[in-house]
Amino acid sequence: MLGILLLSPLQTRADEGMWLFNRPPIKQVEKKYGFRIEQAWLDHLQKSSVRFNTGGSGSFISKNGLLLTNHHVGAGIINSLSTAGKNLMEDGFLARDQSQELPCNDLELNVLMSIRDVTAEVEAVVTDKMSTEEAVAARRAIIAKLQEVPSDETATKRRDVVTLYQGGAYHLYEYRRYSDVRLVFAPERRLGAFGGDPDNFEFPRYCLDCCFFRAYENGKPAVVENYLKWNRNGARDGELVFVSGHPGTTNRELTQAQVERMRDNGLPYYLERSNRKEVLLSAWSEKDKENKRRALGALVGTQNGRKARTASLHGLLDPKFMETRGSAENEFRESLKSDKSTAEVDEAFATIEKEINKDDASRLRFALLGRDAFDSTLFGIARTLVQAADESLKPDAERLAGFNEARRKILELGLFSDDPVYKDFEILRLADSLAFLCNKLGSDDPTVKAVLGGLSPARRAEQLVNGTALEDIARRKALYEGGKAAVDASADPMILLARMVDGEIRRLRKMEEASDEVVKQAHAKIAKARFALAGESRYPDATFSLRLSVGRVTGIPSQKVPFHTTYDGLFARSADQDGKPPFDLPESWKEKRGAIGKDVAMNFISTNDITGGNSGSPIVDRNGELVGVIFDGNFDSLVNNVAYDEKTARAVSVDSAGIWEALDKVYGAENLLDELNAE
Amino acid sequence: MLGILLLSPLQTRADEGMWLFNRPPIKQVEKKYGFRIEQAWLDHLQKSSVRFNTGGSGSFISKNGLLLTNHHVGAGIINSLSTAGKNLMEDGFLARDQSQELPCNDLELNVLMSIRDVTAEVEAVVTDKMSTEEAVAARRAIIAKLQEVPSDETATKRRDVVTLYQGGAYHLYEYRRYSDVRLVFAPERRLGAFGGDPDNFEFPRYCLDCCFFRAYENGKPAVVENYLKWNRNGARDGELVFVSGHPGTTNRELTQAQVERMRDNGLPYYLERSNRKEVLLSAWSEKDKENKRRALGALVGTQNGRKARTASLHGLLDPKFMETRGSAENEFRESLKSDKSTAEVDEAFATIEKEINKDDASRLRFALLGRDAFDSTLFGIARTLVQAADESLKPDAERLAGFNEARRKILELGLFSDDPVYKDFEILRLADSLAFLCNKLGSDDPTVKAVLGGLSPARRAEQLVNGTALEDIARRKALYEGGKAAVDASADPMILLARMVDGEIRRLRKMEEASDEVVKQAHAKIAKARFALAGESRYPDATFSLRLSVGRVTGIPSQKVPFHTTYDGLFARSADQDGKPPFDLPESWKEKRGAIGKDVAMNFISTNDITGGNSGSPIVDRNGELVGVIFDGNFDSLVNNVAYDEKTARAVSVDSAGIWEALDKVYGAENLLDELNAE
Repeated sequence: MLGILLLSPLQTRADEGMWLFNRPPIKQVEKKYGFRIEQAWLDHLQKSSVRFNTGGSGSFISKNGLLLTNHHVGAGIINSLSTAGKNLMEDGFLARDQSQELPCNDLELNVLMSIRDVTAEVEAVVTDKMSTEEAVAARRAIIAKLQEVPSDETATKRRDVVTLYQGGAYHLYEYRRYSDVRLVFAPERRLGAFGGDPDNFEFPRYCLDCCFFRAYENGKPAVVENYLKWNRNGARDGELVFVSGHPGTTNRELTQAQVERMRDNGLPYYLERSNRKEVLLSAWSEKDKENKRRALGALVGTQNGRKARTASLHGLLDPKFMETRGSAENEFRESLKSDKSTAEVDEAFATIEKEINKDDASRLRFALLGRDAFDSTLFGIARTLVQAADESLKPDAERLAGFNEARRKILELGLFSDDPVYKDFEILRLADSLAFLCNKLGSDDPTVKAVLGGLSPARRAEQLVNGTALEDIARRKALYEGGKAAVDASADPMILLARMVDGEIRRLRKMEEASDEVVKQAHAKIAKARFALAGESRYPDATFSLRLSVGRVTGIPSQKVPFHTTYDGLFARSADQDGKPPFDLPESWKEKRGAIGKDVAMNFISTNDITGGNSGSPIVDRNGELVGVIFDGNFDSLVNNVAYDEKTARAVSVDSAGIWEALDKVYGAENLLDELNAE
Repeated sequence: MLGILLLSPLQTRADEGMWLFNRPPIKQVEKKYGFRIEQAWLDHLQKSSVRFNTGGSGSFISKNGLLLTNHHVGAGIINSLSTAGKNLMEDGFLARDQSQELPCNDLELNVLMSIRDVTAEVEAVVTDKMSTEEAVAARRAIIAKLQEVPSDETATKRRDVVTLYQGGAYHLYEYRRYSDVRLVFAPERRLGAFGGDPDNFEFPRYCLDCCFFRAYENGKPAVVENYLKWNRNGARDGELVFVSGHPGTTNRELTQAQVERMRDNGLPYYLERSNRKEVLLSAWSEKDKENKRRALGALVGTQNGRKARTASLHGLLDPKFMETRGSAENEFRESLKSDKSTAEVDEAFATIEKEINKDDASRLRFALLGRDAFDSTLFGIARTLVQAADESLKPDAERLAGFNEARRKILELGLFSDDPVYKDFEILRLADSLAFLCNKLGSDDPTVKAVLGGLSPARRAEQLVNGTALEDIARRKALYEGGKAAVDASADPMILLARMVDGEIRRLRKMEEASDEVVKQAHAKIAKARFALAGESRYPDATFSLRLSVGRVTGIPSQKVPFHTTYDGLFARSADQDGKPPFDLPESWKEKRGAIGKDVAMNFISTNDITGGNSGSPIVDRNGELVGVIFDGNFDSLVNNVAYDEKTARAVSVDSAGIWEALDKVYGAENLLDELNAE
């Protein structure tokens, strides 16, 4: 952990990097691995890769739109398809034929079809003479324009302008959309999340963290040109492998001042909030088994986030790490000394440092009022309705992100979701988040007083959740279609609350956007200087857009960690912990133990540079065949957020051979095996 | 919860109050219950009551020194008597005769023998002309002098000056000490803590939260004059009951400004720290069953504290509650308007408000450096050794509390405890608390930098814990006996760290003590005005000294909560939750289910006014016979810290009939039943 290698503008080792598909590391891979990445190979991998709008990755694995991702990527959907009586999380699910596949109405998938560099177009609209506010508006307008999709194509197309290099470049991504997606197979949660939080981000690991969906078009399985061939042998020790997925966010390009702020401010705040939530959800879950089912997704998400952030912070609290990182930044700035851009770059660094450290109080208010103070699905719906009513009156180019015509379908997907809303769970979370608001801003704050309306957080949460009619989807539709007049006339307590805080949130967002713009402009100058030194061949920070990561399958010799685990290891780990949760196995697995190949690979590790969002990414060999599905990183990979270290950071995958074995020996899923076998 | 009744100087209902044994509520009880508290009855109850220096209460229940307390009061000891191979927490323990009783070396018990009002003596040494620092020193000196015990009696006597009414009075308590205590009986943790955190502070409840110790003298069971007769019928619905125990701390006498500070500052800070610790300990516990055993006590304590603080905060965040409380304070101040003390009291309130809201940064530093930044048993030992070395050079009256000659035995008990210290568990807690220090003070703080010595919190914790020799008790003794010279010469990394931070902690403590003195003097003025209005018949805030609480056994009709639960309910609750932890039962209990009386009472509730520290308190009927042992309060009782509400607040006890049933039918503990039966 101490010797973390930093990204440097001048040298990047092949195994570090989340590469753009339009800037692939062809030379590096050829040099290190003697493998030539061909354009057709790359195109095929790109178009076989899928983004889940819930925040994960996946891939097509048959010509009939069959999709592979992680159990934990599908978990929210699997849970929402469950009820107290029919618990798909506990019992798993297998459709024996296509008629049994379960529609998941709120899911949207994107497949990247093309990329275009639009940096010049975006930069052209922002001039030096503009105020920051004008620059924000101009940038928003051009991005909205670029993202527009002809109205007759919105059902199948999506366009995203992706901001790269922290503002150094803008690329336009065009996606194929799929919005009819159905659940095909999910193992029991005990397999999908074997080892639970204790084994999360650890290796050795024993998880069947996979599930299958299918994309449909016009009511029939989607016929796709590009899909990955299933390699039944799985991953081999030492072999070259590629990950194609959607890493969410990294912060490697941040300035030292930004990282220090993250260390002293952002991460501690996140953990304070997240620890509180984890304690709340755990305690409530333990009270009753139905509570546990309802809170499961939120709890797992919170634990996952906590582990990742704790690890990042762990890295940043190492003075040697920070020193090394600071030195690299200084070296870059020194290397410009003879350059005429020195002054501009120095000013950019100074601007960023000044900008990010001002208005602490406002930033906290925005984090709270804009997000953390109202942990309630119903409040989120109310706020979206209030915002939509205002935004729909504006020209498209002036609307808040997410409210443009091009995003209408996605907005409505969330707004009219029939995901069950549990009032007790709503009250629990809302009461606690309102109490958090009181703690952070103080009970005498005028906004806090107005939000509580003379009640305690718990009583206010009860009043709001029991009083609102927004769990009724028809009611949501009426308010949405009725527009501003309907929303303004509504006496629904959630709507009233959302309207009450809307003004302050808008003011705070404006400040935050202006601040982001200043930082973005400064980063653009730094990026330009970096490009001048080393060209545009560097990979940018992750942005939940498609990236290619290169690595090899290998253990960690220094820690005696093997490159993969087997089914025998699964049963041994369970026995070691007396078969108690989260190390318990379903009866069916215990019964079929004799039939399961002891030495069949279950999970394996590789040096690929990944991060959150890569969950469900396919991992392929040099033939482009699927050898596994990424589901985790080890502890040392969690600092990937700020830096990558090939010595100890590992991506963790479910082995394709292990999935095959389970489908064959435990689940008897001949229909799926036949489909995977077909050419 | 909203209509909480506030303490008022003029009227106190009989069921509210944690009464001094030298100011018993004789009139109130006679009026409300028609029962006359006689002095002999009171003396017997007082001298049958026991304080555990680990923070709980208990009682003698046989003439041979047999003691009853809670399983959770004994848990730390039971766990320290366990090993990975012989787990008394899991399996329980029963000594079939006295030779099998297990010595617990670190335990000290106190029995209150007499009380003397020393207010005049303490107040006489502090004059108006003194500076705050001089007042602190003078008060410390007189208290040390009053607490002195002749050197030939220190083995059996202890004297405490108890500060009452937040500084309005000082009483000298003389205790009989017992330091040879042995474990006699403990049920399995699954019974002692059935329902775990989810059922904690809830009712209905099903806990056999009791265990038995025995006090020894000169190697033989202590012969005691006063002990409680065991009532085999248990508690009856509606009957008058008394609790005699040691409530730890309440804050009912605090000014409104102090309570607001608690709400906006103290409790949020506590919960931030405690949530963080709970997440850390839970996650580590879940990794491995031996981890779970090692962390159990700390985890349970953290969860318990979190629930209690969350409930208190829940009360304080209710604007109506705060308004009512504020009005009561104003009424009191109004009632003085014609009094000459008005100006003095007004000034006292103003002084307190000003004093508590200054020096936030220093208070945070003291909380961190003095307590929260070093969550390590070995560091605690190092700090005690460093302090003892310095304090022992001073005259007794000038030493820090805890380092006087009168406290030497207790100090040494802790310092030379052979409680196992687990290095992995030490590193875990120390690393996390050091990271917390970084988060709160920032990584660039000079003290933080010095503490870390250029390492990350995790690496520094490893260096300290692996480098110290303080787990060796002989080493501790050598440093303790070697005094300042030995400590100054030590190169032990924990000692070096403790010495490094000692100077700053002393400076911060001085500030805090001076601040406390200012507040205490102001409270003394307020208390004097209250005494003038209503006499000294009020009960003061809890101070972990012996108190009498009056109540009656009763359910909560408005919530349809019954007055007690039965063994049948225990088995039903377990079945409802599929017998999964923390609702699982030992095999032996399942086997003996048929023999256990279905309707035998297990737990019952009563209106007694209690709080943390009351755990293990005997609850007796009007004959002074034991009908149960207090182990919990319901959720609504947790706000007892600031106010008591008879309508919904309940104390929760294990029923004496239920304990008898378990000893008889499940454990076959004839030896104990015979002893309890004996006259």
